[in-house]
Amino acid sequence: MASEFGYSLKITVYGQSHGEAVGAVADGLPAGEPFSLERLAKFMARRRPGAPLTTGRREPDAPEFVSGVLPGERETELVTCGSPLCAIIRNTDARPSDYSAFADTPRPGHADYTAYVKWGGKADMRGGGHFSGRLTAPICAIGGIALQILERRDIYVGAHLEAVGGISDARFPLLPTKQLFDEIAGKAFPVIDDACGKAMQKAIAEAAAELDSIGGIVECAIVGLPAGLGSPMFDGVESMLSRALFGIPAVKGVEFGNGFAGSASRGSQNNDPFVIAGGKISAETNNSGGILGGITTGMPVVFRVAFKPTPTIGKPQRTVYLSRNEPAILEARGRHDPCVALRAVPVVEAVAALVTLDLLLSSGYFYNTNC
Amino acid sequence: MASEFGYSLKITVYGQSHGEAVGAVADGLPAGEPFSLERLAKFMARRRPGAPLTTGRREPDAPEFVSGVLPGERETELVTCGSPLCAIIRNTDARPSDYSAFADTPRPGHADYTAYVKWGGKADMRGGGHFSGRLTAPICAIGGIALQILERRDIYVGAHLEAVGGISDARFPLLPTKQLFDEIAGKAFPVIDDACGKAMQKAIAEAAAELDSIGGIVECAIVGLPAGLGSPMFDGVESMLSRALFGIPAVKGVEFGNGFAGSASRGSQNNDPFVIAGGKISAETNNSGGILGGITTGMPVVFRVAFKPTPTIGKPQRTVYLSRNEPAILEARGRHDPCVALRAVPVVEAVAALVTLDLLLSSGYFYNTNC
Amino acid sequence: MASEFGYSLKITVYGQSHGEAVGAVADGLPAGEPFSLERLAKFMARRRPGAPLTTGRREPDAPEFVSGVLPGERETELVTCGSPLCAIIRNTDARPSDYSAFADTPRPGHADYTAYVKWGGKADMRGGGHFSGRLTAPICAIGGIALQILERRDIYVGAHLEAVGGISDARFPLLPTKQLFDEIAGKAFPVIDDACGKAMQKAIAEAAAELDSIGGIVECAIVGLPAGLGSPMFDGVESMLSRALFGIPAVKGVEFGNGFAGSASRGSQNNDPFVIAGGKISAETNNSGGILGGITTGMPVVFRVAFKPTPTIGKPQRTVYLSRNEPAILEARGRHDPCVALRAVPVVEAVAALVTLDLLLSSGYFYNTNC
Amino acid sequence: MASEFGYSLKITVYGQSHGEAVGAVADGLPAGEPFSLERLAKFMARRRPGAPLTTGRREPDAPEFVSGVLPGERETELVTCGSPLCAIIRNTDARPSDYSAFADTPRPGHADYTAYVKWGGKADMRGGGHFSGRLTAPICAIGGIALQILERRDIYVGAHLEAVGGISDARFPLLPTKQLFDEIAGKAFPVIDDACGKAMQKAIAEAAAELDSIGGIVECAIVGLPAGLGSPMFDGVESMLSRALFGIPAVKGVEFGNGFAGSASRGSQNNDPFVIAGGKISAETNNSGGILGGITTGMPVVFRVAFKPTPTIGKPQRTVYLSRNEPAILEARGRHDPCVALRAVPVVEAVAALVTLDLLLSSGYFYNTNC
Repeated sequence: MASEFGYSLKITVYGQSHGEAVGAVADGLPAGEPFSLERLAKFMARRRPGAPLTTGRREPDAPEFVSGVLPGERETELVTCGSPLCAIIRNTDARPSDYSAFADTPRPGHADYTAYVKWGGKADMRGGGHFSGRLTAPICAIGGIALQILERRDIYVGAHLEAVGGISDARFPLLPTKQLFDEIAGKAFPVIDDACGKAMQKAIAEAAAELDSIGGIVECAIVGLPAGLGSPMFDGVESMLSRALFGIPAVKGVEFGNGFAGSASRGSQNNDPFVIAGGKISAETNNSGGILGGITTGMPVVFRVAFKPTPTIGKPQRTVYLSRNEPAILEARGRHDPCVALRAVPVVEAVAALVTLDLLLSSGYFYNTNC
Repeated sequence: MASEFGYSLKITVYGQSHGEAVGAVADGLPAGEPFSLERLAKFMARRRPGAPLTTGRREPDAPEFVSGVLPGERETELVTCGSPLCAIIRNTDARPSDYSAFADTPRPGHADYTAYVKWGGKADMRGGGHFSGRLTAPICAIGGIALQILERRDIYVGAHLEAVGGISDARFPLLPTKQLFDEIAGKAFPVIDDACGKAMQKAIAEAAAELDSIGGIVECAIVGLPAGLGSPMFDGVESMLSRALFGIPAVKGVEFGNGFAGSASRGSQNNDPFVIAGGKISAETNNSGGILGGITTGMPVVFRVAFKPTPTIGKPQRTVYLSRNEPAILEARGRHDPCVALRAVPVVEAVAALVTLDLLLSSGYFYNTNC
Repeated sequence: MASEFGYSLKITVYGQSHGEAVGAVADGLPAGEPFSLERLAKFMARRRPGAPLTTGRREPDAPEFVSGVLPGERETELVTCGSPLCAIIRNTDARPSDYSAFADTPRPGHADYTAYVKWGGKADMRGGGHFSGRLTAPICAIGGIALQILERRDIYVGAHLEAVGGISDARFPLLPTKQLFDEIAGKAFPVIDDACGKAMQKAIAEAAAELDSIGGIVECAIVGLPAGLGSPMFDGVESMLSRALFGIPAVKGVEFGNGFAGSASRGSQNNDPFVIAGGKISAETNNSGGILGGITTGMPVVFRVAFKPTPTIGKPQRTVYLSRNEPAILEARGRHDPCVALRAVPVVEAVAALVTLDLLLSSGYFYNTNC
Repeated sequence: MASEFGYSLKITVYGQSHGEAVGAVADGLPAGEPFSLERLAKFMARRRPGAPLTTGRREPDAPEFVSGVLPGERETELVTCGSPLCAIIRNTDARPSDYSAFADTPRPGHADYTAYVKWGGKADMRGGGHFSGRLTAPICAIGGIALQILERRDIYVGAHLEAVGGISDARFPLLPTKQLFDEIAGKAFPVIDDACGKAMQKAIAEAAAELDSIGGIVECAIVGLPAGLGSPMFDGVESMLSRALFGIPAVKGVEFGNGFAGSASRGSQNNDPFVIAGGKISAETNNSGGILGGITTGMPVVFRVAFKPTPTIGKPQRTVYLSRNEPAILEARGRHDPCVALRAVPVVEAVAALVTLDLLLSSGYFYNTNC
């Protein structure tokens, strides 16, 4: 138990930042689903390091699919075959020596210390090991396939960087559409309002210049889901999504629809009136984030994910020598994103797509649509 | 899949608001653990309906334990015996007729509509059925036992009503202790600052007077946990807690430590410096909420849970006739809490205690301590 | 983890033989499924104690359904509503004093000793506690509902007592049909050949007269399943069934189709040729027991379950005093079946029905058929 | 759900026979456990193809461990680090063209047909795809590590070929010891009595010469387990083992201790008397196979696994053209073992070792022993 989530679709993530490889296995994908490697590469490029404002680490990050697929009709296409799909991404630019210091002086805010305690000093402490943000690459590799499978059924998942260091690009209400998602995905900086994005970039650059880091919020939406998916109580859509989202490194909060803001409101404001729209039952507003009682309403599922500032910073920080039980000062080197939330935008999409696909598979939806 | 959570300790919740009974089964409790029925009754009284500002429904809510226990040394004590413990609470004050209207006109903000769609109109629609807040009574019955098992090992769980309708009783940093928990649990209104509590009560009373409802936030802490519990990624402490917490009716957000506020900060502010305190490694601050990389740091685990306003309100609301696909106006009757967050304080404690016990059992902690 | 099985349909069994009650919770039943209480009572009567050749314990064993149901169209009918169904059966004829001796002198062949070790002497040792055959009553209560749900879809489950103490009523090949199942279910002694049944009854009576017990084999079949259900490897139909079947007390072996006999054969004999029958692909023989690669072939699923002799016997047996670590002689009193396999026939059917329903639900089959 | 088993230790198997690679991920291994690559290679060599009487396919089968490990003290040693361990074995000798015929004419007794139905013709049909015996290679790679971890704690797992085509090398009672296991593992043909082994080899050679195949039985034992491991009912040791064992291709039966033979006996014969041996409670005989009520007794866990004859045979067999719904005759080519049970001996050991390790981890055993 640990690096896995899902019911009908189980995702297992493996690898360490500076080990041989990172990767993931997806067990339960429907068979006969083609996916474009070009589109996948384009999706994965959105989280790739090396862009301005991200870590200097440069890796092609091209996943190899060693199982679960057959050749597709075109050369740049593969087709799922129903058996577990394993993706492997080699670590070609690993520099474990950058991190040797951390083995004895755990980074404040990072998992170095807790991993050390949990595994009695036997964990791979190089660059965060299994806790590294690098583990989100295979999540995107698998999630990018799920996105293509969903889109074929007119279900779309998209996210944007809603806030950085308190600078907010929030829209209330957010009106998510495929068009909005495509537009944001096409931008170098994934915001709705580019002027706001400029201010965010400035804040990130300033933090980086001060050898510091900065937090942010990613907002994500899933559109096109039918009503009636999910379950009451502990396997509700919120439970399934939050469990998976908190598995992304640096996530410290998840809220659906109005979330924490809703807790400051009245029922008469927060309840979404039911209306007849186009002959069908719909909700006039979407303060519920598309989920009531853990079950989809048919409105967009909307949620927000809080990312803490990257814990690894160049500024001197107080820590301890594990070996000597004495105070220490750490000035972290290595290559780190000043704002993990930025590159996390497609990661949140990937996790949301995988949970959505699991939800559909668990409900029997795919049985009906002949997959 | 649905009404269950847990790994080594599995909790299954059953029942409908206006059916025969509600209850829960706990499979995996350690054996030989005595628990006081008096203390349990006292704990459960904290969520009981009938208090001022809560629903008018009056039920003794005394759980009967039909399995999993043996007689204890004292008459008011039972002892776990290792086999699944089943608690049953009869619905003695059910009035299904109060809710007959909802069957055709789903309450905005409630699960009436989504349950209708999911189960093709075959769900128990009386009073929220399985989605009712009444299902939290058996959670408290089982969670109250977990609390006693934890306390025997100097692990304490406590919560307070941090906010109602935007009126905040937050403390940063919160310094949770058994003493603070006991103090709050002893109050009629579970806040830290009673003056603030008065303002909250006024806001609740005003909402009720206007046939409306109001949201709130519950903050909870777990103290006494050793460092090193939990797992990386998707079975981290945040994942386990959030999955269970979103199973509580009306929860729309969960954040740990600094949570959403942390996403507006810098790494140099948000990271908790490691220090030597009393010869042991500790953290100077607790912005992480006691969890790094999904694993406990040994500091208190602190989290906040956002509750939306009670969806059932007396004010007229727009909805639809399911049978006729036409607009309708609903003025809900029945007995409802104007602020679910208030009675949810012990529910959050109960869920936190159950997840904590599962976490300890899954880690092998109990094996070591001879249970 | 322990007293639960299932994926989309989770069954949790609770209770102790001489505690307050035994029961089960079924989470995931499809909604809107009526079931006849009369038919259920008739089914449960087949495992009821008190018949000749079974334990002298007499209990009505009528389950009360406290959740998961709504009233049906007729008075003796209930309808599932989609939320967890909890069945409770009170222990009205418990005589814990019969078993007090076992607390210190564990019965050879029984779980007394292992339960003692596992729970450090804190288990409920009265009459087998949670390990008692009495726990199969709630399995039948839930399984009897599953049988009715399956029959509505022309899927039938039936079993017969294939052997007792080496006396065999086996048929190769078994040609299972609803008619055969109905015929056997209508008999006082559930065999195909009544003459063979007479010999078995004699063997049981002789064992009982000698204060001894005797083992037996139950053969079960599931007819009407479509091809393509199940999964490769560890969630294959054999894996799902065997995991659940070994949870029935006294089961020590499970084989599918030709099973152990097949391991003595050649491939050319054991392979089932594919043929076209009635325009459809079928298999000419069914040595595979209806399962290839963990997935149903569309032929009947056939398996055999080996039950050991009832461990509790009146004959003097060597055991030990747990308290004194010294040898002891035990002459068990109490009321025990001389042949557990006899009453296990409907229990095997119940477990098979529950696994089959889970298999269908997990595959999405019910989504398609509008349940 | 499908290609995974385990609770605290989760094993996921991926790959297709004629795809890029096969492999497995083990999530939950204890950290700091060194394992010798030489010993692992020696263990894996026991199932390797290319030996006399096995398939002609020749592959080095050396697993690459791309995650979950750190370098060991010696060059041929790796050490687990607590994060998921991924093993990958490239398919270097794949010849998909050998199998193209099967795509339209499913092999009787093989999963070709059921995979075709389950995945609507979209499965990888080359050489059995994910259903191939080749998938047992990664099970051995991971299981071989578990064996080394267990041996360090004086827990030993061993198996022998108990029967081939009805020729039996059974010992009643089997007295399993590390010495016996080592002796058998050192033999070219894994039997206890070499004369019996000669007869088996003759039977296999004869079947092969006639373009046929032959079934067999593998018996396995686990020695050194403490009493009290496992759970009642559906997570008992028999349930856990059988679920995993039926995931091995060609397994059709599993029995524990006396198993099916026990069902022909009396309780007075089958019950194992408890005795005091060396000051400790023990059982005089082991008809229970070391398990009572799903929980270990402290005696060796002993079980037998029935393997059907290899379904792929050269003899002409009747099948159908899937594309034309017409009868066909298949004469299978390709490289196949005439007796899968032979190479399955280490596979059964590997699965048993993995389940045993999971059982120990789930019980908290490792917490206590400082791993």
